[in-house]
Amino acid sequence: MRTIHIIGIGAGDPGQLTLAAAEAIGQTDVFFLLDKGAEKHDLIALRQQLMARFARPDHRVVAVADPDRDRTAAGYVRAVDDWRRERADLLEAAIAEQLPDGGTGGFLVWGDPALYDSTLAVVEEIQARGRVGISHTVIPGISSVATLAARHRIPLNRVGRPFLVTTGRRLAAGLPDEVDDIVVMLDAHCAFIHYVDEDFDIYWGAYLGTDDELLVAGPLREVADQIVRVRQEGRDRKGWIMDTYLLRRRDAPAGR
Amino acid sequence: MRTIHIIGIGAGDPGQLTLAAAEAIGQTDVFFLLDKGAEKHDLIALRQQLMARFARPDHRVVAVADPDRDRTAAGYVRAVDDWRRERADLLEAAIAEQLPDGGTGGFLVWGDPALYDSTLAVVEEIQARGRVGISHTVIPGISSVATLAARHRIPLNRVGRPFLVTTGRRLAAGLPDEVDDIVVMLDAHCAFIHYVDEDFDIYWGAYLGTDDELLVAGPLREVADQIVRVRQEGRDRKGWIMDTYLLRRRDAPAGR
Ligand SMILES: C[S@@+](CC[C@H](N)C(=O)[O-])C[C@H]1O[C@@H](n2cnc3c(N)ncnc32)[C@H](O)[C@@H]1O
Ligand SMILES: C[S@@+](CC[C@H](N)C(=O)[O-])C[C@H]1O[C@@H](n2cnc3c(N)ncnc32)[C@H](O)[C@@H]1O
Repeated sequence: MRTIHIIGIGAGDPGQLTLAAAEAIGQTDVFFLLDKGAEKHDLIALRQQLMARFARPDHRVVAVADPDRDRTAAGYVRAVDDWRRERADLLEAAIAEQLPDGGTGGFLVWGDPALYDSTLAVVEEIQARGRVGISHTVIPGISSVATLAARHRIPLNRVGRPFLVTTGRRLAAGLPDEVDDIVVMLDAHCAFIHYVDEDFDIYWGAYLGTDDELLVAGPLREVADQIVRVRQEGRDRKGWIMDTYLLRRRDAPAGR
Repeated sequence: MRTIHIIGIGAGDPGQLTLAAAEAIGQTDVFFLLDKGAEKHDLIALRQQLMARFARPDHRVVAVADPDRDRTAAGYVRAVDDWRRERADLLEAAIAEQLPDGGTGGFLVWGDPALYDSTLAVVEEIQARGRVGISHTVIPGISSVATLAARHRIPLNRVGRPFLVTTGRRLAAGLPDEVDDIVVMLDAHCAFIHYVDEDFDIYWGAYLGTDDELLVAGPLREVADQIVRVRQEGRDRKGWIMDTYLLRRRDAPAGR
């Protein structure tokens, strides 16, 4: 039996690591790192910093190449499923070969493992196959969403009201009914530009928690262009961008 | 000018404290604690433990009585507003009297300050009044929602899909359209019992992160009664309960 810690490390700021996450890093014999292409360098730098600080001196790092992912596929969920299966193949082999029975493996997951991340699903797929015996624990992390709210010093919800967390793809397909506070992740195409005529405030952030952090907030119709520009500049400069935002519909002045 | 740190401390497990939160606790001269009635003892115990471990030896703690809150008021938002105003009065006076100019005050906020918590709004109301000059920072914390997901080892979202975070009150008023993953907080009345005929799985947790933690998961129609019973037992035993849950609608077997 092997143990796998799935460890949330926060969204970019090493100070976001929790004490439990630091402890789990200290218990880990072998870290499995997934190679992520363009953004690789910066995302791996945080992980290396955390391992240097909290891992045991004799820890090992196993880099697993990430299978190519067809991001343009018509069937998005299907593409993600295939990719996850391939990833499970690679990781299963890596765990079987590199993590001795009785050992502890670890994944350093960006943000919170519960939010738009596939590590949990991949580990469960490996378990379901039953060829390598593993038991796993999840250590929650500070998500990019929590970081966005903290940096703008805003709550995600309004008193007694709900909020939705969704993707750029979904937002581009239409506004949700009934909910006036919408957190958007995984948006490669500035889906907010479709809604500049609605009465929204936007709270936007990129590279949250890092030295490159960018923040813009204001009435959507006034700051949308600025966000598009700042986002493009950031992307040109660094070669990749990760951004997230909250759309908050203004309440009608009279009781609504 | 005074500085106020609004510090997320996690949802019950001291290991959820982040390094940045520990550092902010160490910078704080005066902690303002809000008295919370029944659940007071346990909720204050975690704060005391964290202060004992991370605060400077000469820190001070100022307890501020919480104004009575009319939880049965017809106008819920209105009642919250009044209560917040009264709270701002009490806190403003406490800050003016107890925190010297140039000093650093701190609030140890349960979970993440961005989630159904009034500390930010109260601090902003005090700022808006302009009688005591304060600037504030927010340090994100691990929320009860992140803890729920970690303990059940589930993601909050499904691939490419949104999720809603809402209250028991809202859920009792009706199911949201269009979203099949619903996180419920602040539910004093087990609103899920209205939906036992729907095809939901439920992932429920109470006292998450503490030694009293309770977890139940399964098809809603099969485990709803058990949750109601376990919840009542917990409440009877401890005198209070905090629970949260995810309702996840099962996908229709054929392509939906
Ligand atoms: C694959 S998801 C992973 C989310 C991660 N598990 C979390 O908890 O934040 C990647 C998306 O998260 C958001 N994101 C992650 N880190 C971010 C950061 N530092 N700043 C802004 N957005 C970020 C972006 O919306 C990005 O498209
Ligand atoms: C006033 S809200 C504060 C939420 C907090 N800021 C957070 O981030 O979790 C209180 C609600 O949070 C949830 N909650 C907070 N702590 C919890 C815990 N340890 N276990 C289960 N639910 C919890 C419950 O739904 C409770 O009614």
